[in-house]
Amino acid sequence: MFKEYQHLRIPGPTPVSPEVQRAMDRTILGHRSGAFSEIFAQTCEKAKYVFQTKEDVFILASTGTGALEAAVANVVEPNDKVLVLVTGVFGERFVKIAKAYGANVMTLKFDLGTTAKPETVKEVLQQNPDIKAVFLTHCETSTAVVNPVEKIGNIVKDTDALLIVDSVSALVGMDLKMDDWDVDIAVTASHKAIGLPPGLALVCVSQKAWKVIEKHKGPKFYFDLLAYRKKIKDRTTPYTGPVSLVYGLSKSLDLIKEEGLENGFKRHQLIRDMVRAAVKALNLELFVQEEEAASCTVTAIKGNNQLDVEQLRKILREDYKVEVAGGQQDLKGKIFRIGHLGYIHPLDILTTISALEMALKQIGYPISLGAGIKAAEEVWCNDKNIG
Amino acid sequence: MFKEYQHLRIPGPTPVSPEVQRAMDRTILGHRSGAFSEIFAQTCEKAKYVFQTKEDVFILASTGTGALEAAVANVVEPNDKVLVLVTGVFGERFVKIAKAYGANVMTLKFDLGTTAKPETVKEVLQQNPDIKAVFLTHCETSTAVVNPVEKIGNIVKDTDALLIVDSVSALVGMDLKMDDWDVDIAVTASHKAIGLPPGLALVCVSQKAWKVIEKHKGPKFYFDLLAYRKKIKDRTTPYTGPVSLVYGLSKSLDLIKEEGLENGFKRHQLIRDMVRAAVKALNLELFVQEEEAASCTVTAIKGNNQLDVEQLRKILREDYKVEVAGGQQDLKGKIFRIGHLGYIHPLDILTTISALEMALKQIGYPISLGAGIKAAEEVWCNDKNIG
Repeated sequence: MFKEYQHLRIPGPTPVSPEVQRAMDRTILGHRSGAFSEIFAQTCEKAKYVFQTKEDVFILASTGTGALEAAVANVVEPNDKVLVLVTGVFGERFVKIAKAYGANVMTLKFDLGTTAKPETVKEVLQQNPDIKAVFLTHCETSTAVVNPVEKIGNIVKDTDALLIVDSVSALVGMDLKMDDWDVDIAVTASHKAIGLPPGLALVCVSQKAWKVIEKHKGPKFYFDLLAYRKKIKDRTTPYTGPVSLVYGLSKSLDLIKEEGLENGFKRHQLIRDMVRAAVKALNLELFVQEEEAASCTVTAIKGNNQLDVEQLRKILREDYKVEVAGGQQDLKGKIFRIGHLGYIHPLDILTTISALEMALKQIGYPISLGAGIKAAEEVWCNDKNIG
Repeated sequence: MFKEYQHLRIPGPTPVSPEVQRAMDRTILGHRSGAFSEIFAQTCEKAKYVFQTKEDVFILASTGTGALEAAVANVVEPNDKVLVLVTGVFGERFVKIAKAYGANVMTLKFDLGTTAKPETVKEVLQQNPDIKAVFLTHCETSTAVVNPVEKIGNIVKDTDALLIVDSVSALVGMDLKMDDWDVDIAVTASHKAIGLPPGLALVCVSQKAWKVIEKHKGPKFYFDLLAYRKKIKDRTTPYTGPVSLVYGLSKSLDLIKEEGLENGFKRHQLIRDMVRAAVKALNLELFVQEEEAASCTVTAIKGNNQLDVEQLRKILREDYKVEVAGGQQDLKGKIFRIGHLGYIHPLDILTTISALEMALKQIGYPISLGAGIKAAEEVWCNDKNIG
C-alpha cells in the first residue's frame, strides 16, 4: 500500500507539485517545432524573474554540475588564476572543475558550518589583481550554510574578476539579485527549489561575463554558452532541448510568480525557523550555529554519542517513510540534513518533525514526544501573530 | 503554489495513491473489447477478497447511493414489510429509498452516537416474522459509529429475512465477512477505503438473496442485478462499464491484497486510536463515547461554547489546507468529522492533528500546542512497542 509513499526531505530532488507533474505529462513535441519554440521562448523569458535579471537565461539539459562546468569552461583558460571560496563539498567541486580546465586555483577555505568572509575575499583580491574569477557557492548544501553573495558581489564588482555563483540549492528558496548584486554567472538546477525532476539546469550571464566569454579560447562544446546565446535568438537550443522538463519549468515558473518570490523566501525562512526551533527542543544540536548563516533550504543537525545519525536515517526511511540526507565526505556519519525547499508547505515540516520525534524515541534518545512539534508550532503561531 | 495542495480528511472521497492514479491514466479501451473484458473479469474476481466471499461481486457505474438503491430495488416490492435500523443519516437514506419503492417500513432508531442493539433487533424480528429484509448501515458516516454487523447477522440468518448492509464507508477499513457473517447483500463505493475517485460501486449478493431477487417483480432497469449476473458470465457489464475506474480498482485491489486486509484493519484502528487520544488531549469531546462503537474510518468531535465547529473547519481549510467534514442534518454545526480511511498512513493523521492544534490555538480554544501530537505519538509508540 505504501511502497511509493514518502516524504522526500533531502536537499534535492524535491517533491514535484501535481500541477508541474501534469504539465510534464503533455505529448512530447519536436524540439525544433514551432509549437515547442513558442513554449521554450516564453519559458526562457519567464525565467528572468527568478534570477531577478534583465539578461537572458539559458536552459541546459544537464544537472547542476553540468551548469557549474559550463560556468568554468566558458571563462577559464589554462593557467588563469581563479579564487574559489570553499565552505564545503560544493566549493570543492568548483576547485576540481577549475583544475580540470587547467586553472591556477587559489582557495580560501572557511570552517565547515561557517560562511565565506567578505573581508578576507577583499584582501585576497587586492593582493591578487590578476584573479580572473571568484567562485562562490550560494547555499553550501553539504553544511547548510548560506554565503553572503550580496556582500561579496559588492567587492568583486570593483575588480576585473567575474563573480560566479552556484545557486543550485538556493535560487527561489533564498534571495539572489543577479543584476543588483553584480553576479556575473549564476546557475541553478531543476530539482531544487524550482521543484522539477532532475535533468535541467539554468545559467544566467552578465554583460561583464559575456566580454570574457567572447574572448575565451579553451576547449568546450556541449556547454559552449555562445552557442546557446546564438540559438536563443532563434527561440531554440543548440542541441535537443529537454522537452518535458521545459513544460514543467514553464508551469513551475508560473506557480512561483503567482506566489511571489518574496513570499516564497518568507515561506522558506519560516520553515527553516520551525526546524531550528524543533531541533533545539529535541535536545539536538544545529551544525550551523548562527541564524544568519543558516540556509533556508536545508538544515544540518549533529549526531552525538547517543545519536547514530545513520541509524536514525534508516529508521526514518523504513519506519516513517521520511527520507533525509546524511553528511558528505568529512561530515559523513556526523550530521544529517533535512531538505526543505521548493514545493513544501509549513505543515509538511511538522510531519517531518513528528517522524523525527518518533524515530528519536525509538532509538532511545532522551526527548519528550510532542516537544519538537510544540516549538515548531509556536514559531508558526508567532509568524501568524496568533497569541 | 499551494492552490491544489490539500490534506483531504473527509470520510470520502479520499486521497488516491499515485499507483492508482497512474493506473487510471491508461488509454480508454472499448468497454466491450476483449482487452477490457480481461481486465474486468480479473478485477471482479479480485474483488471477492475484500468482501471475504465466494460470491460474485458486481461493478456498477454509480456512487454508493446507487448501490443502496440496487439493494432495495431488487428485493422490495410494494407493501413488503422491511426493518431499517437507523443510527443516523445513512440509515434514514435506506428508509427513504425503501419508501420510494413502496415498502411498509418499520424503523428502529437508536440514539445518535450509539449503535444498533442486536437484542432489540431480535425481539422485533420475533414479533414480525413477515419482515422481508433488515437494512443496516455498517459504518454510520454521519455519527462515526460502527454497527455490530456480525451479531445482527447471527440473528437474521435464522429468519427468512435478508440482511442488507451498507458498508460504503467501512469495507476495507473494517472487517466485513460477507459469507461467515451471513450478510445477504453488501455494498460499497469506490471513493471510500478502496481509494478511488467517486463513480463506481460494488455489490455482493448471497445465495439466499438471489432466491428472493429471482422472484422479484418490481420496476427496475439500470440497477437490475439479474442483468449484471447474466453479463458477468460474459465478462462484461449490461451497460457501459466505468473503464478508467475499473483500471484503478484493479490496481487498488492489488495494493489492498499486498498489504493484507487484516493489516489494513489494524492500520485503520491505530489511526482511530491516535485521533481519539489527540482529541482528548486537546480538551475536546468525542461524539462516540464507547471505543468499541467508534468507527475506524471516521471520528466525530463535538463543538461547544468555546468551539464553533464551522469556524474551525474554515480555518483548517483556508489556513492549513486540511479539509474535514461538518455535521449533517440534526448534527450540523454541532460536530465536525475527521475522515481517516483508505490511502492514509499514520504519519498523515499526525499532520492533521498538527493542523488541528494550530487552528484551535488560532480561535482561542484553551489547548497546549503539541499536546495532541504527544498523545497520538504515544499511541503509535505503544503500538510499535517503543518504550
